[in-house]
Amino acid sequence: MATALAEAAREIVQVGQFLSLRNFVPATSGNFSRRLDARHAAVTRSGVDKGELTEADILALDILAPPPPGSSAETHLHLHLYRDRPHVQAVLHTHSMVSALLSQLRQAERELRLTGYELLKALGDNRTHETTISIPIFPNDQDIPRLAARVSEDLAKRPDTVAYLIAGHGLYTWGRSMAEARRHTVALEHLLTYELETMKVRR
Amino acid sequence: MATALAEAAREIVQVGQFLSLRNFVPATSGNFSRRLDARHAAVTRSGVDKGELTEADILALDILAPPPPGSSAETHLHLHLYRDRPHVQAVLHTHSMVSALLSQLRQAERELRLTGYELLKALGDNRTHETTISIPIFPNDQDIPRLAARVSEDLAKRPDTVAYLIAGHGLYTWGRSMAEARRHTVALEHLLTYELETMKVRR
Amino acid sequence: MATALAEAAREIVQVGQFLSLRNFVPATSGNFSRRLDARHAAVTRSGVDKGELTEADILALDILAPPPPGSSAETHLHLHLYRDRPHVQAVLHTHSMVSALLSQLRQAERELRLTGYELLKALGDNRTHETTISIPIFPNDQDIPRLAARVSEDLAKRPDTVAYLIAGHGLYTWGRSMAEARRHTVALEHLLTYELETMKVRR
Amino acid sequence: MATALAEAAREIVQVGQFLSLRNFVPATSGNFSRRLDARHAAVTRSGVDKGELTEADILALDILAPPPPGSSAETHLHLHLYRDRPHVQAVLHTHSMVSALLSQLRQAERELRLTGYELLKALGDNRTHETTISIPIFPNDQDIPRLAARVSEDLAKRPDTVAYLIAGHGLYTWGRSMAEARRHTVALEHLLTYELETMKVRR
Repeated sequence: MATALAEAAREIVQVGQFLSLRNFVPATSGNFSRRLDARHAAVTRSGVDKGELTEADILALDILAPPPPGSSAETHLHLHLYRDRPHVQAVLHTHSMVSALLSQLRQAERELRLTGYELLKALGDNRTHETTISIPIFPNDQDIPRLAARVSEDLAKRPDTVAYLIAGHGLYTWGRSMAEARRHTVALEHLLTYELETMKVRR
Repeated sequence: MATALAEAAREIVQVGQFLSLRNFVPATSGNFSRRLDARHAAVTRSGVDKGELTEADILALDILAPPPPGSSAETHLHLHLYRDRPHVQAVLHTHSMVSALLSQLRQAERELRLTGYELLKALGDNRTHETTISIPIFPNDQDIPRLAARVSEDLAKRPDTVAYLIAGHGLYTWGRSMAEARRHTVALEHLLTYELETMKVRR
Repeated sequence: MATALAEAAREIVQVGQFLSLRNFVPATSGNFSRRLDARHAAVTRSGVDKGELTEADILALDILAPPPPGSSAETHLHLHLYRDRPHVQAVLHTHSMVSALLSQLRQAERELRLTGYELLKALGDNRTHETTISIPIFPNDQDIPRLAARVSEDLAKRPDTVAYLIAGHGLYTWGRSMAEARRHTVALEHLLTYELETMKVRR
Repeated sequence: MATALAEAAREIVQVGQFLSLRNFVPATSGNFSRRLDARHAAVTRSGVDKGELTEADILALDILAPPPPGSSAETHLHLHLYRDRPHVQAVLHTHSMVSALLSQLRQAERELRLTGYELLKALGDNRTHETTISIPIFPNDQDIPRLAARVSEDLAKRPDTVAYLIAGHGLYTWGRSMAEARRHTVALEHLLTYELETMKVRR
């Protein structure tokens, strides 16, 4: 597992630099993880700037056990995805301006419906812009195990969903590889920006 | 042709880095090409981050033959330009936020009319701001050969046009050199942003 | 104190590069300081680009004495914080677009009330988004000792406040370490942007 | 004069990189100059990307003679400033999004009045935010000698003015050193952005 952990740490450090440059993980916000095997994952430590991660900031853990001390407070929100969805290989949580703001402005609707944009094809196995993708919006909750249980229960009904928003907080997305999870983050940032910008224009 | 391909690949890799830095080709979106000679062109492979291209991601092809496997799904949209317009040396397709959003918001008008801006002089042989440039907006279509035929037919009536939009998708532009195609991309990004920002202001 | 000054200068030069990259200290605006001990602090010189500081631009001073020649005109606004709040280790003053603009647009309200956002947890010891943080807005004043006295008097009634705005001017924030002061700057930039963007949307 | 030219070229190359990074000189727009002595100046060549200048792109010229071939088409707009204002040491012309757009949206007012912002202190010898600065807006004109004559005549009545806008085109500003001209550019970019953003908000 040492090799898998070193490789996962390398991927996490790189994705942190990539997302930090784009201003998606301000202050010490955001957290990232990578599956190691059927039972284990690597997750970022709490309280670190995600653009300045080193391998020492990546912790290995058992996805069935309680998160170890020092791991991100939101580790539960990563673990249920690895337990519930065997194909998930990486989970990325970002706090970009648009994800925090739009989820707050639209939380009463409980979901964001995205339609008509070519970039929808960057999400999962979607192959056309002529579709509607629903991104659920959950109310924020400082009780993370409770929030994780709520998210897990809701996602069980949405097997094709590849992302959700927490109101006023940010975006969770995942993928069958770190590259796919990163592509989802970037594509959703654009799709959410389309929505926010549309709210501003006079037609 | 090996030298021409190597030189084209170098130009494509460089323009990919330039456009990726400006956030014009999010996720693995966008595709680029360069004419090699009267009958051949080089085009980017499908599914690669356009800011991280290497020479191995650039494929040579016959502009009269079906696109080879692995080439971008949108290769047809490049080829008709090389066939229809002998002076075209480079074609750039970008997915910037403003090109995807504005083309979606304004698609019912079927064109975007740009007028009064100095930066219009960066497009083709235009030499004054006292003109109106029309950028056609086509509906998006996952049937790329059909979309390419429609674009080709429309552009035949507009010999001075140097760019078009696909609604909710992005921008196609070209030039008599890679430098001109890049200048068109950058100038249009500003011109489209003027339009979107104008839609937001209260006067 | 020479070692403390060298270490403080290193931290100030680094934070200047970090904040300049993010466009928070345009032209030669902004100023930064770091406590050296109970009685002394290091502060930036006047008139320098804060992204291009060198150690020679950092001056040591006595927090109870008048600021030395060459120090920033706004040094008084740093010193009262070191005198009034013994735990303050670093003070950062930035002039970002959003801090200058929003403080001008909202100055009649005399404070900005921030609520419901996860990023509130990046401010001081706050541990939940279910709270309201008040950021006072003071009218700008070219008489800096008078402004410093007014700020000092007001903050005495708000022991938990970690930042304030000067209308049309910018943001002051501080921390128990340079890292905390920087985290406050970045988090507030996002929180202020949420407010400004919300003023733009039609719902 | 060879040394003065080499030093001027170095300053112009550097300011071009600085302004290009901030997206103020898109495509091959913008042009820059530096006084060499009472009678001569150095100016950028036409048609070059201003972020990729080399010393070979900087031409020396006589400020009383017609601009040499290859110099920027807008060289006349630099020369009258060196003739009319002996203290002017550098002139910078930028095409940022906000300068082109705001000057177009507000051209009927023929000036932009800026008031109440601390950053006004970055302009010339202004020492307070409690003032109003007027930035004239001229209609764009492809006849550059005619435009230069009009600007020169108008500025003769405004000895304290340090900048003007050309509608739909961009910003001209200058300084008693290259550093001052650069500071004016950056400060005005923020001040113009405050104006544009204010036009967007609902209060």
